[in-house]
Amino acid sequence: MDFGFSDKARSIQQRATEFLTECVYPAEPVFAEQLAARPDEWTAPPVMEDLKKQARERGLWNLFLPHSQWGAGLSNLEYAPIAEMAGRSPHIAPEAMNCAAPDTGNMELLAMFGTPEQQEQWLKPLLAGEIRSCFSMTEPEVASSDANNVATRIEREGDDYVITGRKWWSSGAMSPRCKLSIVMGVSDPDGERHQRHSMVLVPMDSPGLTVVRPTTVFGYGDQAHGGHAEVVFDRVRVPAGNLLGAPHRGFALAQARLGPGRIHHCMRAIGMAERALELMCQRALDRRAFGSAIADQGVVRDWIAEARLRIEQARLLVLKAAWLMDTVGNKGAAMEIAAIKVVAPDAARWVIDRAIQVHGAAGVSQDTPLAYLYAHLRTLQIADGPDEVHRRTVARQELARWR
Amino acid sequence: MDFGFSDKARSIQQRATEFLTECVYPAEPVFAEQLAARPDEWTAPPVMEDLKKQARERGLWNLFLPHSQWGAGLSNLEYAPIAEMAGRSPHIAPEAMNCAAPDTGNMELLAMFGTPEQQEQWLKPLLAGEIRSCFSMTEPEVASSDANNVATRIEREGDDYVITGRKWWSSGAMSPRCKLSIVMGVSDPDGERHQRHSMVLVPMDSPGLTVVRPTTVFGYGDQAHGGHAEVVFDRVRVPAGNLLGAPHRGFALAQARLGPGRIHHCMRAIGMAERALELMCQRALDRRAFGSAIADQGVVRDWIAEARLRIEQARLLVLKAAWLMDTVGNKGAAMEIAAIKVVAPDAARWVIDRAIQVHGAAGVSQDTPLAYLYAHLRTLQIADGPDEVHRRTVARQELARWR
Amino acid sequence: MDFGFSDKARSIQQRATEFLTECVYPAEPVFAEQLAARPDEWTAPPVMEDLKKQARERGLWNLFLPHSQWGAGLSNLEYAPIAEMAGRSPHIAPEAMNCAAPDTGNMELLAMFGTPEQQEQWLKPLLAGEIRSCFSMTEPEVASSDANNVATRIEREGDDYVITGRKWWSSGAMSPRCKLSIVMGVSDPDGERHQRHSMVLVPMDSPGLTVVRPTTVFGYGDQAHGGHAEVVFDRVRVPAGNLLGAPHRGFALAQARLGPGRIHHCMRAIGMAERALELMCQRALDRRAFGSAIADQGVVRDWIAEARLRIEQARLLVLKAAWLMDTVGNKGAAMEIAAIKVVAPDAARWVIDRAIQVHGAAGVSQDTPLAYLYAHLRTLQIADGPDEVHRRTVARQELARWR
Amino acid sequence: MDFGFSDKARSIQQRATEFLTECVYPAEPVFAEQLAARPDEWTAPPVMEDLKKQARERGLWNLFLPHSQWGAGLSNLEYAPIAEMAGRSPHIAPEAMNCAAPDTGNMELLAMFGTPEQQEQWLKPLLAGEIRSCFSMTEPEVASSDANNVATRIEREGDDYVITGRKWWSSGAMSPRCKLSIVMGVSDPDGERHQRHSMVLVPMDSPGLTVVRPTTVFGYGDQAHGGHAEVVFDRVRVPAGNLLGAPHRGFALAQARLGPGRIHHCMRAIGMAERALELMCQRALDRRAFGSAIADQGVVRDWIAEARLRIEQARLLVLKAAWLMDTVGNKGAAMEIAAIKVVAPDAARWVIDRAIQVHGAAGVSQDTPLAYLYAHLRTLQIADGPDEVHRRTVARQELARWR
Repeated sequence: MDFGFSDKARSIQQRATEFLTECVYPAEPVFAEQLAARPDEWTAPPVMEDLKKQARERGLWNLFLPHSQWGAGLSNLEYAPIAEMAGRSPHIAPEAMNCAAPDTGNMELLAMFGTPEQQEQWLKPLLAGEIRSCFSMTEPEVASSDANNVATRIEREGDDYVITGRKWWSSGAMSPRCKLSIVMGVSDPDGERHQRHSMVLVPMDSPGLTVVRPTTVFGYGDQAHGGHAEVVFDRVRVPAGNLLGAPHRGFALAQARLGPGRIHHCMRAIGMAERALELMCQRALDRRAFGSAIADQGVVRDWIAEARLRIEQARLLVLKAAWLMDTVGNKGAAMEIAAIKVVAPDAARWVIDRAIQVHGAAGVSQDTPLAYLYAHLRTLQIADGPDEVHRRTVARQELARWR
Repeated sequence: MDFGFSDKARSIQQRATEFLTECVYPAEPVFAEQLAARPDEWTAPPVMEDLKKQARERGLWNLFLPHSQWGAGLSNLEYAPIAEMAGRSPHIAPEAMNCAAPDTGNMELLAMFGTPEQQEQWLKPLLAGEIRSCFSMTEPEVASSDANNVATRIEREGDDYVITGRKWWSSGAMSPRCKLSIVMGVSDPDGERHQRHSMVLVPMDSPGLTVVRPTTVFGYGDQAHGGHAEVVFDRVRVPAGNLLGAPHRGFALAQARLGPGRIHHCMRAIGMAERALELMCQRALDRRAFGSAIADQGVVRDWIAEARLRIEQARLLVLKAAWLMDTVGNKGAAMEIAAIKVVAPDAARWVIDRAIQVHGAAGVSQDTPLAYLYAHLRTLQIADGPDEVHRRTVARQELARWR
Repeated sequence: MDFGFSDKARSIQQRATEFLTECVYPAEPVFAEQLAARPDEWTAPPVMEDLKKQARERGLWNLFLPHSQWGAGLSNLEYAPIAEMAGRSPHIAPEAMNCAAPDTGNMELLAMFGTPEQQEQWLKPLLAGEIRSCFSMTEPEVASSDANNVATRIEREGDDYVITGRKWWSSGAMSPRCKLSIVMGVSDPDGERHQRHSMVLVPMDSPGLTVVRPTTVFGYGDQAHGGHAEVVFDRVRVPAGNLLGAPHRGFALAQARLGPGRIHHCMRAIGMAERALELMCQRALDRRAFGSAIADQGVVRDWIAEARLRIEQARLLVLKAAWLMDTVGNKGAAMEIAAIKVVAPDAARWVIDRAIQVHGAAGVSQDTPLAYLYAHLRTLQIADGPDEVHRRTVARQELARWR
Repeated sequence: MDFGFSDKARSIQQRATEFLTECVYPAEPVFAEQLAARPDEWTAPPVMEDLKKQARERGLWNLFLPHSQWGAGLSNLEYAPIAEMAGRSPHIAPEAMNCAAPDTGNMELLAMFGTPEQQEQWLKPLLAGEIRSCFSMTEPEVASSDANNVATRIEREGDDYVITGRKWWSSGAMSPRCKLSIVMGVSDPDGERHQRHSMVLVPMDSPGLTVVRPTTVFGYGDQAHGGHAEVVFDRVRVPAGNLLGAPHRGFALAQARLGPGRIHHCMRAIGMAERALELMCQRALDRRAFGSAIADQGVVRDWIAEARLRIEQARLLVLKAAWLMDTVGNKGAAMEIAAIKVVAPDAARWVIDRAIQVHGAAGVSQDTPLAYLYAHLRTLQIADGPDEVHRRTVARQELARWR
């Protein structure tokens, strides 16, 4: 196990740190102001385009993509500290560096499985940051952690596929910038368990596609990022060429997409936790109660210590998972990916919760990023597979050694 | 220790249950629709006035007030199950029954310490549900858990008091219906530690009083209830007759206010937990994954059991605190009030968190009340004294037995 | 719910408190010395007989038995605080007051289901404290939490029952004072699920009965109380008159025995927790580190507060369960009995663990009772049904409301 | 950060694994039998000498010592997996490989700070496994986590040092094989805070040195390893040449000793956790209740997953601390050493506790190693500095970044 970094990787880390300090943090209040003053709920604050320009110029663009044909060609281990840094300002930095979910996963799918035509039409503008995209898998009527519950149908009719179903949590789909949905549905109901689904590329302006309403995360609407949409597909028709990958291989594609997606989430979660710990320490040193700084209270110091213990452990496990993905592949790292998907959000959530407590009422309000981070991480314990599914994966693998 | 109920108390419980079933639960979707469709952010949904009328007719009005001159004259123990029921629909039921914070605490202060003039002017319309009020104690610049940090000044000038300072989390103050703020500030900076503060009644339309902005709780604005406001008092002048109680006795008034306020919060928290457990069970029975109902998964059943264990214990401790307040007074029950202020929100929060997990993405969205309940309870672990202050109280009393 | 006590009950509580202070606590070091100096591993320290005499004279004898024909006729609620007090010195007080497991459960079985002959032969000397007894249900080869796993056979041969099997954790059976085992085994393998077992009274000196070895609890042997024995029954023959209750009704008898047994364990657990909290407070006030008493460290104070919160809640739930057993019967209280069987040992264990930490190395040694209490309570989370079985019971009942 | 291993290190790991499988595990029941049958409480089972011979022949001797002059010269990182393996059979493997506490720490002190004469007299026979030694620092009357509480005096009289004081938890001192105590005491009461103590080498047969009694850990006496002794030093006189290191530098020596000591404990703790997890899985697959293998119960699977998550994280943090000690030195790794001293025993204890639960009554008995492992790890949360002291170290370092 070697978690060392090449000079190239260190140089990018250096530039990312500078980008955060020089551009992103100063842009946070501007972003909030523009958000408050925006004319239309789903418009992104204009400062984002400036930041994107800055990131491109600094060579901090599309770093998530391990395929050197299209992206930076960093290994997962090399990308980890960059993603962690992006997580420190999760509203802004990921999109500014064109490394924001769900586009990253979609770009990865298109890079790996797209036809040249699909790549030309969708991957290039996504990589250029000109459009955004959403991923439509989860459905409101069923427990979507079990892929066999998916009810949406993708049926071949002549030269077309016809899609019928109801999806939700299609993140980003409320935004006018969102032009593409990658939709997963059942194409062969009688196929083997993991060979029933297909994925198709559906333009957002397709007839029959209706964005019904946004859903909120705790009280947050994520308006700047296009929110989270419930989308109805009522006999939406796309050409057969819009099929992504092979027919009935949607489950495998979803797995391919989720591996990197999960580890990116976890890397960013570590960054969120670090930022919360910083804020907690600064506040604890700054505020006084009952005759001394809050930082001198034993209980608060104990939280700070516990926060450091949890972050260190979670980060190391994330690095190990990244290193395994790089050395033995996503399949060989399946247990570790499941493990970090549980560990990292849990650790980060704990740290943020204590940071909220140290901040008092400010901690739950808009005056700190903490409550938003909390809501985001709480949701991450459900999204991309709830904790329970990942814990089952870990247990199954552990027990398999002794059967 | 006798937690039995009189026939009168049982009869009220019965009526409260009916009110919830017949009026409140059916009004929840209506309330949400009216909220979405309201012309102005801070307007209350009109269905509330219908519910208030219903509650009055059913004899479910002002039940929180133990002073029989003004209210129902129920003991704390008698009121506990009513408050628990109100907590099951915390957006609607408390206000509908005129038992919502912060008005309850303000009414209690006015009933106990108000002059006949003050009662005529403010208590009567509050008891009638015609106006609402806020309480301005917490300040943004300091750790307000320590009263000695309060910076707002209340200075005598001739026949007036002049108030200067900045408060926040004045809940309800964004609403046009809010007509009164009870303000706590320092009136005698050189007085003994607990004899430095006064409370004054400040009409919301006083010159110099500016409502600066609302703060949010996780992403929620609590718009229907007047939100949470930051309020600046810039040499706000009120007649000396607006002093509440004796001069420089504000700390004692705050304590008198907080005792019942805390137990009411805890009673409602139990109701929130019960509702979340109901929703969790129903969902677990309803949804299927990997071949069986979620309710058949051992881990989910374990959460349900744990939820029941925590709720039962928390409720019993709340009842004991109520019984002690009734039999030995708020001071004699100080340890138990501190204890439940920690225990009840923590128990309820745990239950709600697991209910969210069982609901998946629906749990964090607006489609269930769970995320809102969670945000509310998380905030309660900070408001009215953060957990740490109450835990210190418990420890101090425990150690005092052995010193 | 009425947790009030009659004058009679209060008077017994008063006498029990005095007995502890005047007799039991002073006897603790004597007991330890006699134990260290005893000639034979399984001999009880002689001071016990003095204490038994004292307890009888003070009217503190056989208080556990609700059947007034045989015992004190206290309700479960009345007995609760007495049992709690006995738990404060669990090595000594329960046996001194003839209220120690497993004899209590055995006496209860004999009082309820024994024939007059059985009562004459076994119940009377047990009630007199002249002999002790054990209960042989658990088996080493199977998961005994599921009664259907019981492998021991009780077969009718002519006028006899013949018992064959291997039991362990027959507590007390290493002592020469132990004269009786109540044995549970399968008598009708083809009967309905809960009508397969019988219980028989087996004299310890029966041919074919071999006490194989003692087992330890963590490193403790419980020698003063007869340890915990593995016992082999090799075609042990007893007269048919030794059957306890009706044939094939052993499961119901076991349930009848376990209800009160579980609540007694829980009451004592509360007493153990209270004693640990006392010791923790005293030590924290007594020892100094880094310039102040340990009691002034925020983290230690936080433990003390948490200990009080957990004890208060657990005690109230135990009282509720006792009150329900008294008012609606053991069956009606099934959920609450399951609940406290989980809650009380868990709370006590937590308190004791923190008390150990405050005591440092002394806490794990023989110089305080803490490590022994810990081992006892840890074992209680397995004995009489492991936590998981009780949690299932609670969940099943909760879910049943919504099916 | 590079956790890779050299070929040499891999080869030793391979031999250690074989040694465990071929020699240690088969010796466990022999060891237990010999222990039960030994003539004298403090005699070590003879099988140990065979195992020591085996370990020497296999090149598995004194691997702990990083000083190549005396030992194997492995780095901390290289030693980590060996120590982890030794922890899998903690009664036997560490002593068999001459890597058992407290001798390891004493040998390290002698190697680093001993004079050639001291090394000749004590280090050589210790390295040869011919004698054993104890370390006398902790005292019964004070909180020894604060070195300033040490009361034992080491006073210069002419050419001698005279030692007066009472120590306890001098592990190993009950054994006749224990020939040396390294004693820490105050030699300059008026010196600066960390320049008050000295360490001296005291032969166990010195006049005035009395081994008073053994203390137990939960119920265990650790007899095979010489137990844990209370030792009185009543004007014990040793030549001035017995001073270890420089005068009044005992605190620095203690720190030098504790760094490696702590990490060795943590490495072994990981091994204990792994063994417990193995036992848990095997038992869960083996036992059935309520119609299926325990391994099919969701709650048990959840424990298994959680165990794996905790072990993985703790191990990585231990490796990081070892790597830091190797690359930046013990001082530079101070935060990480404090961190793992909290994390590793806590993780291992949790795993073992759940393994106990899965084993039922067997788990607390002598039939599995689990209860003993639990007691050992619980004690480790107190020994070598209680958790609270290490958590303070972590918090202090974290806060220092922001002051």
